[in-house]
Amino acid sequence: MSGSNFGDLFKISTWGESHGKALGVVIDGCPAGLELTEEDIQMDLNKRKPGQSSYTTPRKEGDLVEILSGVFEGKTTGTPISLLVYNNNQRSKDYSNIKEVFRPGHADMVYDHKYGFRDYRGGGRSSGRETIGRVAAGAIAKKILSTIGVEFTTYTASIGDISINKAVFNKDEIFNNPFYMPDSNAANEAANYLKKVMKEKDSCGGTIECVVKNTPIGLGEPVFDKCDALLAQGLMSIGSVKAVEIGSGTQACKMTGYEHNDFYQTKADQVIKESNNAGGMVGGITDGSDLFLRATIKPTPSIAKGQQTTTHSGENLEINVEGRHDPIIVPRAVIVVEAMVALTLVDLLFKNMTSQMQYIKKIYG
Amino acid sequence: MSGSNFGDLFKISTWGESHGKALGVVIDGCPAGLELTEEDIQMDLNKRKPGQSSYTTPRKEGDLVEILSGVFEGKTTGTPISLLVYNNNQRSKDYSNIKEVFRPGHADMVYDHKYGFRDYRGGGRSSGRETIGRVAAGAIAKKILSTIGVEFTTYTASIGDISINKAVFNKDEIFNNPFYMPDSNAANEAANYLKKVMKEKDSCGGTIECVVKNTPIGLGEPVFDKCDALLAQGLMSIGSVKAVEIGSGTQACKMTGYEHNDFYQTKADQVIKESNNAGGMVGGITDGSDLFLRATIKPTPSIAKGQQTTTHSGENLEINVEGRHDPIIVPRAVIVVEAMVALTLVDLLFKNMTSQMQYIKKIYG
Amino acid sequence: MSGSNFGDLFKISTWGESHGKALGVVIDGCPAGLELTEEDIQMDLNKRKPGQSSYTTPRKEGDLVEILSGVFEGKTTGTPISLLVYNNNQRSKDYSNIKEVFRPGHADMVYDHKYGFRDYRGGGRSSGRETIGRVAAGAIAKKILSTIGVEFTTYTASIGDISINKAVFNKDEIFNNPFYMPDSNAANEAANYLKKVMKEKDSCGGTIECVVKNTPIGLGEPVFDKCDALLAQGLMSIGSVKAVEIGSGTQACKMTGYEHNDFYQTKADQVIKESNNAGGMVGGITDGSDLFLRATIKPTPSIAKGQQTTTHSGENLEINVEGRHDPIIVPRAVIVVEAMVALTLVDLLFKNMTSQMQYIKKIYG
Amino acid sequence: MSGSNFGDLFKISTWGESHGKALGVVIDGCPAGLELTEEDIQMDLNKRKPGQSSYTTPRKEGDLVEILSGVFEGKTTGTPISLLVYNNNQRSKDYSNIKEVFRPGHADMVYDHKYGFRDYRGGGRSSGRETIGRVAAGAIAKKILSTIGVEFTTYTASIGDISINKAVFNKDEIFNNPFYMPDSNAANEAANYLKKVMKEKDSCGGTIECVVKNTPIGLGEPVFDKCDALLAQGLMSIGSVKAVEIGSGTQACKMTGYEHNDFYQTKADQVIKESNNAGGMVGGITDGSDLFLRATIKPTPSIAKGQQTTTHSGENLEINVEGRHDPIIVPRAVIVVEAMVALTLVDLLFKNMTSQMQYIKKIYG
Repeated sequence: MSGSNFGDLFKISTWGESHGKALGVVIDGCPAGLELTEEDIQMDLNKRKPGQSSYTTPRKEGDLVEILSGVFEGKTTGTPISLLVYNNNQRSKDYSNIKEVFRPGHADMVYDHKYGFRDYRGGGRSSGRETIGRVAAGAIAKKILSTIGVEFTTYTASIGDISINKAVFNKDEIFNNPFYMPDSNAANEAANYLKKVMKEKDSCGGTIECVVKNTPIGLGEPVFDKCDALLAQGLMSIGSVKAVEIGSGTQACKMTGYEHNDFYQTKADQVIKESNNAGGMVGGITDGSDLFLRATIKPTPSIAKGQQTTTHSGENLEINVEGRHDPIIVPRAVIVVEAMVALTLVDLLFKNMTSQMQYIKKIYG
Repeated sequence: MSGSNFGDLFKISTWGESHGKALGVVIDGCPAGLELTEEDIQMDLNKRKPGQSSYTTPRKEGDLVEILSGVFEGKTTGTPISLLVYNNNQRSKDYSNIKEVFRPGHADMVYDHKYGFRDYRGGGRSSGRETIGRVAAGAIAKKILSTIGVEFTTYTASIGDISINKAVFNKDEIFNNPFYMPDSNAANEAANYLKKVMKEKDSCGGTIECVVKNTPIGLGEPVFDKCDALLAQGLMSIGSVKAVEIGSGTQACKMTGYEHNDFYQTKADQVIKESNNAGGMVGGITDGSDLFLRATIKPTPSIAKGQQTTTHSGENLEINVEGRHDPIIVPRAVIVVEAMVALTLVDLLFKNMTSQMQYIKKIYG
Repeated sequence: MSGSNFGDLFKISTWGESHGKALGVVIDGCPAGLELTEEDIQMDLNKRKPGQSSYTTPRKEGDLVEILSGVFEGKTTGTPISLLVYNNNQRSKDYSNIKEVFRPGHADMVYDHKYGFRDYRGGGRSSGRETIGRVAAGAIAKKILSTIGVEFTTYTASIGDISINKAVFNKDEIFNNPFYMPDSNAANEAANYLKKVMKEKDSCGGTIECVVKNTPIGLGEPVFDKCDALLAQGLMSIGSVKAVEIGSGTQACKMTGYEHNDFYQTKADQVIKESNNAGGMVGGITDGSDLFLRATIKPTPSIAKGQQTTTHSGENLEINVEGRHDPIIVPRAVIVVEAMVALTLVDLLFKNMTSQMQYIKKIYG
Repeated sequence: MSGSNFGDLFKISTWGESHGKALGVVIDGCPAGLELTEEDIQMDLNKRKPGQSSYTTPRKEGDLVEILSGVFEGKTTGTPISLLVYNNNQRSKDYSNIKEVFRPGHADMVYDHKYGFRDYRGGGRSSGRETIGRVAAGAIAKKILSTIGVEFTTYTASIGDISINKAVFNKDEIFNNPFYMPDSNAANEAANYLKKVMKEKDSCGGTIECVVKNTPIGLGEPVFDKCDALLAQGLMSIGSVKAVEIGSGTQACKMTGYEHNDFYQTKADQVIKESNNAGGMVGGITDGSDLFLRATIKPTPSIAKGQQTTTHSGENLEINVEGRHDPIIVPRAVIVVEAMVALTLVDLLFKNMTSQMQYIKKIYG
């Protein structure tokens, strides 16, 4: 079925595989009048790109985006926006020896079973390259949200057992190191750790956190399209994510009600609170405080170390997944997490506009 | 917007508030020919009911379900099924002193802001009673899944710092104690812990785990309607859930690729594996092994202990939320988690039926 | 699949069969703050009721609506609204002799095939009684639209070969005769014609027209959710409708471009036009002029005259469909047409609110 | 909102404007295993192309389709299929003098109002070129339907007052004349008529009929997604359509019940009927007989003859829409009608697969 659609009012339809001709996304429902250029989108796409350091895959990917429709004289027209990125640098021969093999930790076996056969080159639709469409659309969603002051800070919070120290959190450091960590010490430790991991022909995972400031109060549509529920869907849909936490997350069950509840106070006509265990959402609806989310990323499945597995024809064997592999994909997923959060929030921003009769009157006078 | 709809092919529309006339659900898309009676549904609804022990609220809730449409001569007709439960036992006066107050940890403030006003009695639509519709529909989803052998085991895995011991896991013990824990020792510890918590006029949280056996391979629609993504939405949409984990969950990032990857092997024409860090889903698609999910539940917000808060008119004050409160809601949420998993799986079961042309031919000959 | 849902932002889910316990609808997405009582809805439901004249079925149907959720202190809360009507007056024995028979012109055969079996009493879900849910929800949609000045005039335009004379169109006459015709002469002719038809144990059809004034400009979402396209779906979905026309309708192809085009002129800052062959929609989007639609209703299938048909077990025979039959259902469908138009327009009214960035800013400041 | 999406299980998302870089469609939900090449699609796209005769616009349009994703080794993979056609031959200067003008019969005024501004070149998204996406996707839908024997015959039934003579209906003649009429005499008359119309700098309309053979019984999802309702939406969404008729259409109201009802008979284990006033659908569900639909097309709005109109700034003036105009677009719309019917039917084909529990068992064993 149509699983590549996300959103209802700001609806995106992504397409493309790692070794097909191109990848892209169609955005249906972007309001007219938003200034938009390829640069707005390219900036975010570049944050996906490996090759920035010796710790990421040297395969150069290019990934230049084109706007094919929906923009006229520099502004969105309100009609569908089609974005496309041609696949330029995918070398088939990297994967030819695994045509029949079900690589451990990858979707080879399930795609083969679900569809009867699969594009075995590089994961096809299950490849991380499908996130190109998400990130491109996410850039537009972020631009819309920025017009009402919403700000994103997304970063790698941990790699393996190395966590950032929030006492020295430095937002400017995030894109200053290849791990997108807001803590240079932690980044250095991670660098050493990764050298070790690569030497062992292995890989590791980490966590990504996202903080969103200035979200309007009231976003989220009870009871199934709550803000936290849709964010959970969005984040969990990213390949390799195994857990999603909001606010106190998995620590919530270690606290009592008195410890966990955030106490509202009115100050200068605003409802504020000192603590934020809720992570910015109560009853699944934004309360105006910072949204806080965390996604746990499993270690990259593709490793050069030998592994036991089986094939389409039922043969059990050991494989070494040759080729250049990222020992860690966490930094590349940072912009994907941010994109999914933006896509979720912009759709809820639109849905909230019909929550009260007074809004209808405001528009139609 | 229409946030009370879940699913596309097996689509449910829930309605009702804690102190309105009734609550219920309409199921649109249930196939014809399924045997269905009120008993099938009542069994699961009863698992929501408090009053089973001294640790849950003595407010008796009744909650008898009626089937109003969609069933004829004991079988579903393929037309919409309307289920209704009348509210019989909600006493308004329990909540009358908090008409203006934004109770900490509850959705009072955000509902007030989003909708301009709210039904202040007992949480209205944000009350846990809205799960009546989910559980009722979930019972039907479970019945459909059972016809192809799918089995659910859902239980309380921890309360506060007390965790079950999986070495002595006993499935029959689950509904034998008021905490729905599959470990009687842990249940006893929890009982003592809760006595302490109640004495302090406080509350606590816990975790719920769900294991699903015999799911067909291939359920999940990449890239946004993956099985894990929709399960995450379903679980996170339950009130008080702050984290959702699949398989290794938050532990995934502490392992290397070699440690985390599950190795497939072919044995007797079946693809199996020894480990299951994936939690039954790879690339977001079921691989035939047991699904494993965990939801973290925050401590119940309503406590008798005094808390600082504010009101609709901006007055800061201290409140004691009088009335009988559950110091823990985790056991009541066990059947709700199971319902959401069943609702997600049945919708994906249907969607998967058009994955291959051969299935089309199988039906239309 | 879930075919009983209509709309996205103002989403309705209807349920119920002619001889089940009850019928109803859940409305998900009604904004908060709209004053609403049972009377608002009952008024429109009463327009469905037969028994008003000797030309409609003497079966008394009652049909009193109850609001079960979503309204508090007389105003909608923004949460789902559940409406219910109990079936009080359906006599099974009217239909018992046709349990196996596929009545000509009815959906018996196709339901039997599609679902494997059917509720054979009175058509079940295919009965005209399912429109109860539509009309009830339509009343709420009309109320929302009335807050911005939208006005509906819906009426029977023809019965058999008898058409109203638009030169003597009298809006007040519509509900003054049992045919809901805005022309008393035509109504009298129709009365005589129907006497003749009833004597022959036969039935007849007619047309219904709907005029909507004061619709805002811009409603309709190209290219598939255009206003005319969704109106066509809404009207054609009503049982017995065989044609839907907008503006000039089937006459459009008899005119040249110069004859058909409506010429816009600016007068006192408003864009107006003298002709309206477009029927109020151009490019499928409302242009501020009156919307004009027409639905053609086939003659009522149930007649006492003998007809050839077949049965579930393959037996060919002649039947007389005993019981009291409406020789014409057109007047009863007038309010159903109006409801479907209102449901379509209110959903488009909401969708249009995100057409421009300036609307986003207007709401979120 | 997202109005450029059609279908749920076979969901298409079209994009592109007449003078943008390209146009296309993403198909999400096509089952895996269908053989597919560019030729399959190009064949149908070519039927859109003008330039075949002196009666259609000499602007050459090219329109070569590329498959960018979703196909591997000649078969669909089950992942989204992206189709693209570059705009090669649109000359801006044809329209430059009407930047401010609201052309009569076109969507200029409503787009300008709805979106705040518009791409004024050639109609932008409101141009007939948007149908490229529909026709391309429709070709794939038709291919799927052909695997179970469904056959389409779509043709121009009338132009102005000239109707085909069904007594000499010749299917092979349809693509043998520039009007796609299955009657060469009528085609000749139409040719003469059009010469006259062109001389007067005017335009005309017509009707298109579509007959579908071998549709399975049971397609259509009551009560809103009935087959006839969705076909009505699909056809009415095509630009310039003003009426949609099923079976007897607007003639239904001139018949009595006895005359209109089709009588089922069982012959050799099949349920057949001699008449087909229903047009193949009863209760909105297919009954196995031929589907019959008719769409009425208004005369082409763009004419060289002078017309009164107004501008964006409120100036009233006369315009001559210079450039080469089709005096008739009906033949070009034939393949678009066929595409919309195919898209509707394939989605219902998929939805019907979950109508009965026995189908679930058939797939999951």
